[in-house]
Amino acid sequence: MSATASRRGLFISFEGIDGSGKSTQARLLAEALRTEGAEVVLTREPGGSPGAEEIRDLVLRGDPDRWSAETEILLFTAARRDHLERTIRPALEAGQVVICDRFADSTRMYQGLSRGDLRRQVDALHALMIGIEPDLTLLIDMDPETGLARALGRQGPEERFEGFGLDLQRQMRAGFLALAGEFAQRFRVIDGARDPAAVAAEVKLRVEELRR
Amino acid sequence: MSATASRRGLFISFEGIDGSGKSTQARLLAEALRTEGAEVVLTREPGGSPGAEEIRDLVLRGDPDRWSAETEILLFTAARRDHLERTIRPALEAGQVVICDRFADSTRMYQGLSRGDLRRQVDALHALMIGIEPDLTLLIDMDPETGLARALGRQGPEERFEGFGLDLQRQMRAGFLALAGEFAQRFRVIDGARDPAAVAAEVKLRVEELRR
Repeated sequence: MSATASRRGLFISFEGIDGSGKSTQARLLAEALRTEGAEVVLTREPGGSPGAEEIRDLVLRGDPDRWSAETEILLFTAARRDHLERTIRPALEAGQVVICDRFADSTRMYQGLSRGDLRRQVDALHALMIGIEPDLTLLIDMDPETGLARALGRQGPEERFEGFGLDLQRQMRAGFLALAGEFAQRFRVIDGARDPAAVAAEVKLRVEELRR
Repeated sequence: MSATASRRGLFISFEGIDGSGKSTQARLLAEALRTEGAEVVLTREPGGSPGAEEIRDLVLRGDPDRWSAETEILLFTAARRDHLERTIRPALEAGQVVICDRFADSTRMYQGLSRGDLRRQVDALHALMIGIEPDLTLLIDMDPETGLARALGRQGPEERFEGFGLDLQRQMRAGFLALAGEFAQRFRVIDGARDPAAVAAEVKLRVEELRR
C-alpha cells in the first residue's frame, strides 16, 4: 500500500444492529461520492469477494452449532483475508473509496457477546492475518425497539418484539458503543433514529471531515 | 484433557512424502494396536471430521491459485481446529490412541517450501488456535525416486520421473528431515525403503518405547 494517504484511497466501514439502516446509509454514501466523481467500491462482510462468499456460505448454512466459536472465527478471518486481498486492498491501492457494510468490529462485537475470552483470539488473529483497520467507522446507533419496529415495518408495544431477540439486540448495541469508545479515533457514532436523509447528511459530513 | 499420560490417550502422527508408504503404515499400526486390545481412532488431514472434510473440499477444488497462501493457512487451521474438537480431543480424553495421517508438520513443511516467511504465521496460528502437538511423530523417510517408482508401480530411470515433480519431492523430504531435527524429541525418522513389514516392526517398536 502507498504510504501517502491521498494516494491510498479511503476505507470506510459501517456498523450497527439489525434494522439500524446501516446498509441503506452505506449505499447512499456510495451514491453521493460517485456523484462527486469518486471511484467507490461498495462491499460487505461476511463475503465481498467470490472466495469469501463461498466461505460465508459454508459458515452460515446448516446447523448453527456445527462450528465452534473458534472454528467460526478462523473461517471468518479466512474470508476477510480473501476479501482484503481481492477487493479492498486493490481498490485502496488504486486510490478508490472502499465502503464496507460490516468489517472486523462486527466480529469483535459478536464474539465478545458470546464469550468474552474469545476477544483476545479475535484480536491476535486480526493482528497476524489482517492488520488493516478502516480510516473511519460509522456506527449507525439506534434503540433496538425502533430498529425492530422498522425491520418489521410497524410500531408496536415492546413485548411484541421479545420473540425477535430484543435482548440480544440491546447487548449488540452496547457492544458496538463499547467498541466506539475503545477505538474513539476512527469511530463516529451517528444517531440513526432520524429521517434517512438527515442521517445521510451527517454521514457525509463525517466523511468530509476525514478528507479535509 | 487429563493430566496423567495413561488416561490421556496417545496421539501419534505420520508424516512423509508421496509414495513413502505412511498411510499404509498408519493403517498397519492401527491394526496391530487393535489386535492388542487398544481403542484406536485412525484419521487423516486435511479433513478427519465432517466439517473439516467440507473445508478440505473448499480448499482443494477449483483453480489451485484461487486462494492465497495466507487464506489457505487460515482455512487449513480452521479444518484442524474442527478435527481437533470433534475427533482428536474426545478420543484422547477417552484414553484412546489417535493415529493421524499428516498433522501440523505437513502445513509447516509445505508453507516453508512455498514461502519461508509464512512459517512465522503458521506457528503463531498453531500456538493461538491449536496448541497440541503429537506425542510421537513418525517420519517415514524415503528417497523420492524410490517413492515415485512405488507410486507408479514400476522402476525406471530418473528422467522418467522429472515430470512427476521429483525436485519438489526432494525439497519436501529435506523439509521433513529439517522438522525432525527441529522437533527431535517427538520425531522418529524411519527408513521407509524396506519391506513394509520391516517398516511396520520398527514403527511398532517406536510406539512401544513411548508407552513404556
